[in-house]
Amino acid sequence: MSTDYPLIRLNNKADRRLRGGHVWIYSNEIDTKATPIKDIEPGQQVLIENAQGKLMGLAYLNPHNLICGRLISRDGKHGLDKSLLVHRINIALSLRQAMNDKPYYRLVYGDSDGLPGLVVDRFGEVLVVQLATAGMERVKTEIVEALCQVLKPSGILIKNDSRIRSAEGLEDYVEVAYGEVPQRVLIEENGVQFEVPVYEGQKTGWFYDHRASRANLAHYVKGKRVLDVFSYIGGWGVQAAAFGAESVMCVDSSEFALDCVHRNAELNGVSDKVESLQGNAFEAMKQLALEGERFDVVIMDPPAFIPRRKDIKKGEQAYRRVNELAMRLLNKDGILVSASCSMHLGREVLVDILRQSSRHIDRQLQILQHFGQTYDHPVHPAIPETDYLKAVFTRLLPVS
Amino acid sequence: MSTDYPLIRLNNKADRRLRGGHVWIYSNEIDTKATPIKDIEPGQQVLIENAQGKLMGLAYLNPHNLICGRLISRDGKHGLDKSLLVHRINIALSLRQAMNDKPYYRLVYGDSDGLPGLVVDRFGEVLVVQLATAGMERVKTEIVEALCQVLKPSGILIKNDSRIRSAEGLEDYVEVAYGEVPQRVLIEENGVQFEVPVYEGQKTGWFYDHRASRANLAHYVKGKRVLDVFSYIGGWGVQAAAFGAESVMCVDSSEFALDCVHRNAELNGVSDKVESLQGNAFEAMKQLALEGERFDVVIMDPPAFIPRRKDIKKGEQAYRRVNELAMRLLNKDGILVSASCSMHLGREVLVDILRQSSRHIDRQLQILQHFGQTYDHPVHPAIPETDYLKAVFTRLLPVS
Repeated sequence: MSTDYPLIRLNNKADRRLRGGHVWIYSNEIDTKATPIKDIEPGQQVLIENAQGKLMGLAYLNPHNLICGRLISRDGKHGLDKSLLVHRINIALSLRQAMNDKPYYRLVYGDSDGLPGLVVDRFGEVLVVQLATAGMERVKTEIVEALCQVLKPSGILIKNDSRIRSAEGLEDYVEVAYGEVPQRVLIEENGVQFEVPVYEGQKTGWFYDHRASRANLAHYVKGKRVLDVFSYIGGWGVQAAAFGAESVMCVDSSEFALDCVHRNAELNGVSDKVESLQGNAFEAMKQLALEGERFDVVIMDPPAFIPRRKDIKKGEQAYRRVNELAMRLLNKDGILVSASCSMHLGREVLVDILRQSSRHIDRQLQILQHFGQTYDHPVHPAIPETDYLKAVFTRLLPVS
Repeated sequence: MSTDYPLIRLNNKADRRLRGGHVWIYSNEIDTKATPIKDIEPGQQVLIENAQGKLMGLAYLNPHNLICGRLISRDGKHGLDKSLLVHRINIALSLRQAMNDKPYYRLVYGDSDGLPGLVVDRFGEVLVVQLATAGMERVKTEIVEALCQVLKPSGILIKNDSRIRSAEGLEDYVEVAYGEVPQRVLIEENGVQFEVPVYEGQKTGWFYDHRASRANLAHYVKGKRVLDVFSYIGGWGVQAAAFGAESVMCVDSSEFALDCVHRNAELNGVSDKVESLQGNAFEAMKQLALEGERFDVVIMDPPAFIPRRKDIKKGEQAYRRVNELAMRLLNKDGILVSASCSMHLGREVLVDILRQSSRHIDRQLQILQHFGQTYDHPVHPAIPETDYLKAVFTRLLPVS
């Protein structure tokens, strides 16, 4: 065992979560009297022992964050270095390659892939990386080297502009860390092509997490009139058109996103089927309802209305409002696909919101299918925070 | 409004569940002083009003069951007759036909399709019907007529041997209610053929509810060694072989079921890949472990270990035991598909059982995908009992 790492002791019984498989250590769980951490540098690697002196593993610490430590290995032998990164990236890659013969997926999903604080999305030969913690920021060079070794990319973009970084005391920045990264990269999802704006887009530029939900959309849209609310660059809407929808209307507040929708429609030869409406989603849906517009399928995939626990009440109201507005725009026996990426909104709560909304407008709802994350966003069974995505396919019937 | 139906009044505030969209009425919710029900015949149709005299709809009652009534229509205009049955069956059929171009699915799923107490599975031209309540038993003739009108089947089998019937005071029986029903009917699921033993098999003979989960199996089994525990007639195992598994071992306690496995393997030209092991699943897995047998993919799809709420503790232990045994049989980075059809076992509880089992044998689990019921077993959002099926795809890694 290496002796280069400081040894940090946990409080009595504070090892329970780790023993259950979790990898986070909260700041109040550290026995700072026995082992002060104020001189630990943000992101520094340390050995963790429990109150009885039993080794729990190797972690990186950030004394300035409430989530103060994240376990990297349990035997204490493997520090977070290039060798460990290559090993873990290969384990993650083997799963993605077994499941997808195209190189378009989330390659590394943080805690669930044994690399807490690291996200890597693969867009063919271009990789977009997000570092959420000081521990990962500290090994940025090793991460780039490991990714180059395993994947031989043409370019790596570091897109460090996520909200979480401030809690770690990290600045936001975006930089090309290796090779060349064009403004737009080409990907394929469910047989449909997309140009992804990796610099200017949301997060890494694309939301791979809905791949399976969108594939399932093919069963519902043939010959149908489809509304895609909060469309972003057309992930749902353009796929609906490519899957045979008669017409698709994409609603988004961003002109840039809607420009991308049209470029992506063009790319797939479905420009004649895809129209867009720029504006606030709530207002746009009210306007469509007033104008008597109705749709066979509505896709409701809003941004996280509940970013933090304290937003739960307000957020649930927002989900209720958008879903009820969506239901009012449905033709008889219409299909509502209702999604949520709020980790704080349980699947049962979303279903209950849909039930309430349907009762409120005197309709009968059937839940047809549940979707969520798949193999490239695996869930860590001990870390509920890794499970956030819902997509519920429903049918709305008249009450008789 | 018809005046032929007796009017039954609910206790104060006992309309709350119905207003929320639910359709069940419990016996203690009826104001039997105002409106006695002891002379109501089992399955008789009645009008329901709340304590304030507001009409809640039309229901059928069974004064001998705790779940005493089930709402059929909310406007009180539509009794459960052939016309309503034809209407509701058509609404159910339209969904199935939109989603599946082959005639093999659950056509009617009780409460969720507005027909509480009625299940109809479609095996091409043969229908297998289960009547769970006196209300449905009473309109058996109309059900058969309605099914004949909508679907023109060659035969209808009534398979009335479910556990639930005794609570309704109904006898078990199996009868051909229309046309001719052969011993075995041919179906196709995910492109794979099966002979289904409709008389001698479990329930209606086939479990359509895992169709989507089994389709998903195709991504995991190519060239792999697969174990299918509680295989029944090979729904998972034979599909795994047809999807390209190198070899499949089916374990079941029933010789009859394993004979069907081999017939079904033969039917798909994969007999050389499919072997069977007859015996108790727990003992068989222990034996395989002792013999050093290991598999790349294990499918664990046991019968409901928690049939009633009081079985929760014992049942959860059983799920823990089988899943841990299954994990011990996995090769490195192996895939466990763990299913449960126990309504009383929540999805989160199953995930936690898998987490505990993996920790117990010192492995790290990744939850890759969740599956459950799909369009032909829709969930009624106000009736949690309609949501029962789980299939969790996981990967088991060494801990480092």
